[in-house]
Amino acid sequence: MEKVVRHFQEELEQLKRRLLEMGGLAEENVRLAVKGLVDRDHALIDRVLLGDEPLNALHIEIDNRAFTLLALYQPMAADLRTIVAALKINTDLERVGDLAVNIAEAARRYASHLPVKKLIDIPRMASIAQTMLRDALDAFVRRDVDLAQQVLNEDDKLDALKTQIFRELLTYMLQDTSTIEPALDLILVSRHLERIGDHATNIAEDVIFIVSARDVRHHAREGA
Amino acid sequence: MEKVVRHFQEELEQLKRRLLEMGGLAEENVRLAVKGLVDRDHALIDRVLLGDEPLNALHIEIDNRAFTLLALYQPMAADLRTIVAALKINTDLERVGDLAVNIAEAARRYASHLPVKKLIDIPRMASIAQTMLRDALDAFVRRDVDLAQQVLNEDDKLDALKTQIFRELLTYMLQDTSTIEPALDLILVSRHLERIGDHATNIAEDVIFIVSARDVRHHAREGA
Repeated sequence: MEKVVRHFQEELEQLKRRLLEMGGLAEENVRLAVKGLVDRDHALIDRVLLGDEPLNALHIEIDNRAFTLLALYQPMAADLRTIVAALKINTDLERVGDLAVNIAEAARRYASHLPVKKLIDIPRMASIAQTMLRDALDAFVRRDVDLAQQVLNEDDKLDALKTQIFRELLTYMLQDTSTIEPALDLILVSRHLERIGDHATNIAEDVIFIVSARDVRHHAREGA
Repeated sequence: MEKVVRHFQEELEQLKRRLLEMGGLAEENVRLAVKGLVDRDHALIDRVLLGDEPLNALHIEIDNRAFTLLALYQPMAADLRTIVAALKINTDLERVGDLAVNIAEAARRYASHLPVKKLIDIPRMASIAQTMLRDALDAFVRRDVDLAQQVLNEDDKLDALKTQIFRELLTYMLQDTSTIEPALDLILVSRHLERIGDHATNIAEDVIFIVSARDVRHHAREGA
């Protein structure tokens, strides 16, 4: 029995490591996609568009690991909550990877037009979203409720930047119709980045759930 | 033991019924939001904007039910896969509810401008997305792989309509800048509807996974 328990804990640690690895890949793809957009770098954009296979493979592997842990060890209480959270976090990270691809698609279209403006707020949004994602995963691994709460508090910044970006781009579009198409893609990118922040928020809420076994979902959003 | 098994099966049936109920609510909110957009009906739009509390409560209840089933009965094989799928489907349905709210937000803004055009393709997208969602949940309850596969096949239609809507609205925006703001909201609505189709697709993939214990995710997308 002692050996079974030790084996379970090792498997659980391995599951967490793979989730962190997946988070790292997803975050890196977001970073590259936004860099590709800003630098108008076709090679970088193509790398993101063609490079989500490792993420997809990891997504399936993590799902299988979590499922196997549930089936073989039938864990209770805190361990069960952690594995259920891992399944959800895995879904969130897969979507972040998809959003990085969506950003790269917009970047490719954007690079086929003249630039609308110097991009400042979009890299700022990307940086906030990436930090939220990293902090949410650190909070999961360290079971750090304070850090998770900090992630929830960051979400308003993304929302404010998204609104600001929209207003500014609308002005450009109204003044010069040649900016309509590329400006639309920048608006889409700002929405993709906001959704990456939403996924970080989901992960942070899961952390608070597994640590305190208290459900902050929906209540947290009402306060926003 | 016999009694425990019967009790578990009853609880599992109850979990499925609650998921169907949640699916029904989410689908109804999508329907009302799109009807509010088409009819420019502020009362209907407000009903969706203020009416997602039952969905949020059901989301938490279903999560708790699934979690309790895992903790109390430690189910194996097919039952375990069904409960893990229920947790994922629950997340998908919650997002569909959020997307209905997003559509209602766009509808409210849209109704404050002159109409850009008669809306035909957007109600068509909504109808396809709603059917996909309903079929995916039916497939889950009936363990019907053929119906799930049918849902996966519908996704291309939504994608084609979204592209068509975008091209048409872009023409309006380039010809008349007063249409830029409302046309943007229609473009966003078409993207929200596409994402509802994505969630139906996720559910259909889960059905194929629980029935055949074969993972179609990512592979299915590659074929698209």
